[in-house]
This record gives sequence, structure tokens and C-alpha cells, in this order.
Amino acid sequence: MDTRKHIEVCFSPYLFPLHKEEYEIVVVIDVLRATSAICAAFDNGVKAVIPVATIEEARSYQEQGYLVGAERGGQIVEGFDFGNSPYSYMNDDLKDQEVVLSTTNGTKAIDLAKDAETVVIGSLLNLDALCEWLVEQDKNILCLCSGWQNKFNLEDTICAGAITEHLINTGKFKSDEDSSIAAKYLYLSAKDNYMGYLKSSSHRRRLKNLNLNEDIKYCLTPNQSSVIPVLKDGKLVNIKNSK
Amino acid sequence: MDTRKHIEVCFSPYLFPLHKEEYEIVVVIDVLRATSAICAAFDNGVKAVIPVATIEEARSYQEQGYLVGAERGGQIVEGFDFGNSPYSYMNDDLKDQEVVLSTTNGTKAIDLAKDAETVVIGSLLNLDALCEWLVEQDKNILCLCSGWQNKFNLEDTICAGAITEHLINTGKFKSDEDSSIAAKYLYLSAKDNYMGYLKSSSHRRRLKNLNLNEDIKYCLTPNQSSVIPVLKDGKLVNIKNSK
Repeated sequence: MDTRKHIEVCFSPYLFPLHKEEYEIVVVIDVLRATSAICAAFDNGVKAVIPVATIEEARSYQEQGYLVGAERGGQIVEGFDFGNSPYSYMNDDLKDQEVVLSTTNGTKAIDLAKDAETVVIGSLLNLDALCEWLVEQDKNILCLCSGWQNKFNLEDTICAGAITEHLINTGKFKSDEDSSIAAKYLYLSAKDNYMGYLKSSSHRRRLKNLNLNEDIKYCLTPNQSSVIPVLKDGKLVNIKNSK
Repeated sequence: MDTRKHIEVCFSPYLFPLHKEEYEIVVVIDVLRATSAICAAFDNGVKAVIPVATIEEARSYQEQGYLVGAERGGQIVEGFDFGNSPYSYMNDDLKDQEVVLSTTNGTKAIDLAKDAETVVIGSLLNLDALCEWLVEQDKNILCLCSGWQNKFNLEDTICAGAITEHLINTGKFKSDEDSSIAAKYLYLSAKDNYMGYLKSSSHRRRLKNLNLNEDIKYCLTPNQSSVIPVLKDGKLVNIKNSK
């Protein structure tokens, strides 16, 4: 009997309703930049990140005195403390704080996934630590790529493909969906040079136009962190210590 | 000024509403097997193929005396003359006939695309002839992959990637969407061995289980045909002579 668990990839929040099979764990991925920023935040001692889908919710938290990040279309929304640049979270003022975050794609994907048994944050930054933790859980896993405005994007898919490849190589997981197989192929052709591979990707061009090249380099450098941010009662908390 | 036209890829009918930009030409692709069967039909002298989305429509044509093919889940629907095997169309009885076809994914994608200025049928079978014809048109093009039950599939994406790569290489086209870039990458890694590359794909496994290996080999062998099937008043007709 085949006792291997599933590791599958959903390319965008828009496609999530088609993936109705039972997955106990959903890995939400938004490499540029929400889930990378969340990993950076925990690495820098943030106590919790409260992801909210709308600007209205973000504003309501702000009125209660929270530090609130809000990004739309790659830029900080006027009136908020920061956006989704990982560098914004490398700040002593945020240590031991609960911060609120709303972004164009990433926090919407978290909201969509919230009914899963476990929602965990994935990025290239915490890739190896996350894979190791996922193997320990021994559950069926769906990687949910945040995409760009509901469309497929390359960097999230490559990260999902990296997770898929790592887990399949343990012999304890399998992929049935063509999306998972494609993600794995794309990862394998990208892995030796993420920056070069993604140079023509739409979101990289979008951020480059906003002078965010440092952010891109940071987000595309794997394994700088070993945090495992998990959603508990509407808040993301780190269940593994940072490096 | 950049006067290049767009060649972009939409991974599945479900995602079609997100691709709202102006495309004058939609190339509908269902490699396994609807659009391959349609090319085979024209190569064998069929006069027109009337694509219908539902079994009810197919039955209504049958009652009017048409030859009707209907496939669901890879198999011929009971009571119909044939399904979507290309070999069904290599039959002298079909010469100069108008035949009706309804399939799980392909004819639904044609129905979805029907409001475009031009709807043309793409497969690996007519790849080079189609690319040459598309370049002559000098229009913005969207490749619409039929997918599998609204999900991404590998073989349609690779065919779309082949078209994208060919057209970009002429210098007259460009791709902006990450889906188009990914399709191109997947094609480039698949092109030397389609059968091997697709061996783990979900639909290939599905058809192999139905003993349709000969169909698969036929559909994955490029450039056996030079037909250009285009939708005119609800009927597909061949606007280029077969080889």
C-alpha cells in the first residue's frame, strides 16, 4: 500500500477552490515579498504578525495603537508605518511586538487558507528549516502560491517546486497534480541562479522599477532563517527559534 | 516604440476571465486529445468540425443525422459514434462530412473563446504550420490551454510554450506574463523528449490506464500536419490545405 502523503502545488488563490482534496497543511508562499518579510520579522524578534486581508481591517488595528504594515501594488499604503520590505522588520522598535500586515497578495492567500488544520509560512528564506519541519509532521500538504492579482507567478512557483522536490526526495511524499510536477521542473531549472532565471519575471520587473533590488536579492537568497511561522487563533507565531 | 505584439499563455479555462487584455487571436490547445483529433480530422478530409460544449447539444445534432463524437473522462460517451481519438477520424466515411464533437475540456475551451476575433486550433501536430500562420497575422495572441477539469496540465502548457518560443524568436512578439515565461521554460526542458518528460503527467497516466498509448504517441509527435482549423460561424474549417 502506498502510504506516502501528498505534496501538491496550487498556482494562485484563484485556483484554490479547485484543490478540494484533503490537505492538513497549507504552506502559503509569497516570495516577493510578504512571506519573506514575515520570516525576517520573526528572525528579528517580532512576537506575532497579525495578517489582515483588507486596508479597512489594517486601519482599525492602527486606531487601536498597533504598528501596522500595508502594501498595495508594491508600495507602502499612505498613512501606514511600513510595507512588506523585509528590511522594515529589521528594527529594534518591533522586537517583542505584535505587528499587523496587509499586502496585495500574501495576506489574502493566508486568509483564504485559514480553515486548514495548519497554515504555515514558506519562503526561500526558511526553505530547509520548513522542509525539515514538514517531513516531521507527516501530513498531506498543499503549497498555495500567492501569485500576482490571482495570476500565476514564477518566484512563488519555484519556491513551491523546491519544497516539492525536497519532500519527494525523502521517499515519504508524492505529487499527482501536473501543477506540482511543473513547479518541480521549474525549480530544477532555476535553482542554480534564481536572480538570472527570474530576471524577466513580471513581478521582479515591477519591483525593480520601484528601486527594490536589495529586497529582491534578500528574498531570493535561500536559508537565511530557520523560523516556522504558523497561524494560531488569527496570529502568526514562530514555533521554532530563530538562528 | 515597441511595436511587438503579445504572445501570452493562459493555463486553463478557469483562468481565462483574468486575461482580459485585448487579444485578437485565441489559440485553443488540447493536446491529449481534442485539438489533435481536430487536426487529424482535417488532414483526413473532413469538411467541418462543429464543436459543442454539452452532451445535450451533441445529442440534438445526432438526432438531426450528423456523425457525432463525444468524450468524457477519456472515454467515448455511450450512444455516440466516436470519441476524441485522432485515429477515429482517419476514416473514409468522414471525408467531406461535417462532424460534431464534444469533449471534457477542449470543446469547452473553444466555446469560452468564441467571442475572440479569431479562434484557431493548436496542437503539436500542426505546430510549425500554425506558428508560420500566426506570424503572418501580426496580431496579439493568447494561447488558451484546455487543461484538465479547469486545472493546469503539462502537455497543453508545453505546446503553448513551443508556440511562444517560436514567435518570440522571430523578434516580432513579446511575452509579459509569468505564465508565458514558465510555459516557454517548460517547453525548452521538454522539447527533446516529450514522451519521457510527460511520463509522470496526470493525463498521460489517465490515458495509459485506458490503453491509449498509441494515441499519446501520435499526439506528441510534432508537425505531422499543416492544417489551420479556424472557427467560422460556429464551425471549425481548415483555411490551409492539408499536406
